[in-house]
Amino acid sequence: MKQEFYNLKINTNGQKLYEFTNQTIEWINKNNFKNGILNLSIQHTTASLIVQENADPDVQTDLINYFDKLVPMDDKLYAHTTEGKDDMPAHIKSALTNNQISLSIKQEKLLLGTWQGLYLFEHRLKTQNRTIIHHYIGD
Amino acid sequence: MKQEFYNLKINTNGQKLYEFTNQTIEWINKNNFKNGILNLSIQHTTASLIVQENADPDVQTDLINYFDKLVPMDDKLYAHTTEGKDDMPAHIKSALTNNQISLSIKQEKLLLGTWQGLYLFEHRLKTQNRTIIHHYIGD
Amino acid sequence: MKQEFYNLKINTNGQKLYEFTNQTIEWINKNNFKNGILNLSIQHTTASLIVQENADPDVQTDLINYFDKLVPMDDKLYAHTTEGKDDMPAHIKSALTNNQISLSIKQEKLLLGTWQGLYLFEHRLKTQNRTIIHHYIGD
Repeated sequence: MKQEFYNLKINTNGQKLYEFTNQTIEWINKNNFKNGILNLSIQHTTASLIVQENADPDVQTDLINYFDKLVPMDDKLYAHTTEGKDDMPAHIKSALTNNQISLSIKQEKLLLGTWQGLYLFEHRLKTQNRTIIHHYIGD
Repeated sequence: MKQEFYNLKINTNGQKLYEFTNQTIEWINKNNFKNGILNLSIQHTTASLIVQENADPDVQTDLINYFDKLVPMDDKLYAHTTEGKDDMPAHIKSALTNNQISLSIKQEKLLLGTWQGLYLFEHRLKTQNRTIIHHYIGD
Repeated sequence: MKQEFYNLKINTNGQKLYEFTNQTIEWINKNNFKNGILNLSIQHTTASLIVQENADPDVQTDLINYFDKLVPMDDKLYAHTTEGKDDMPAHIKSALTNNQISLSIKQEKLLLGTWQGLYLFEHRLKTQNRTIIHHYIGD
């Protein structure tokens, strides 16, 4: 059994989806992983990890707009307001999505669908330094 | 360490929950898996994997109706409209739920609660061919 | 390869977030787990598992209030009403969040961010006995 860890750092600059599929695949290739599970976890509660369509960029814009309407930045709605109007909505968006994904690797290939990409979904307005832990367990 | 893969194909026919608990358990039994993790991932971004109640079918109807109200099929709300009025809402519903689940197997038994079943939650209106990757890692 | 299982029991008393980070870490320490994956799964469909901020308790209050507004307890909205006005909303909140989390352990340490804690998010009004399966696979 083989295990490896890697901390992917992404510096974000506002509410966007940041794709990191290529960085993850590069790390897999460099390590010659054959068959195993890749556990991704983001070490924050105001940004998410999601698997989404990597074709039409409008999908990402619509996602961001939808979540912004669903969870309004309105201080009157929340008790936790000391960290900025975007902070409590960011915690809620994190709860509505995911901060962890387990992916499968088979014969050295990450098993994603044709239109699937890996994204960090940033919910904060100002720049942030984010860490996504990559943990491989397999052969 | 033992690893096995299996692609479960489900042909869907509209917005419904499609249970596949039995197919998953059959595959586990056929392979005599003892203790390990079963990673399920759907290779699409317009359908979800969820664990839900398998007793009262009204729960499924209510879930579908709730998500349809929460994410309206209304082209005026979205930029991504070329694939049909149900496509962008389907991407959003996928982000609000899950496209991956890791389950535990102990002494040849899949650890689900008494009322829990495994479902593919289809968000598109027309027929679709869906693939759910099953990946076992254990002894 | 080493595998261990443990059923953590939590008796809940209404809609709250119940932190169990310490119980999980105690179990890891007692077993001297080195590197591996810890799969947590809740055996119910009316309560969730989430990773959230463990600093300001207002974050938890805001989360509970937000989800209560998003998924109203109003029998007129649902067909499944026989188990109480809070039951169908609880199923929906479960679908909107998670009933399973995979965490990484590296060098005997559970990899959570500085402000991250593990919570059972109870969606039912009356007392419940909940089980969270802990399953470790690693070395």
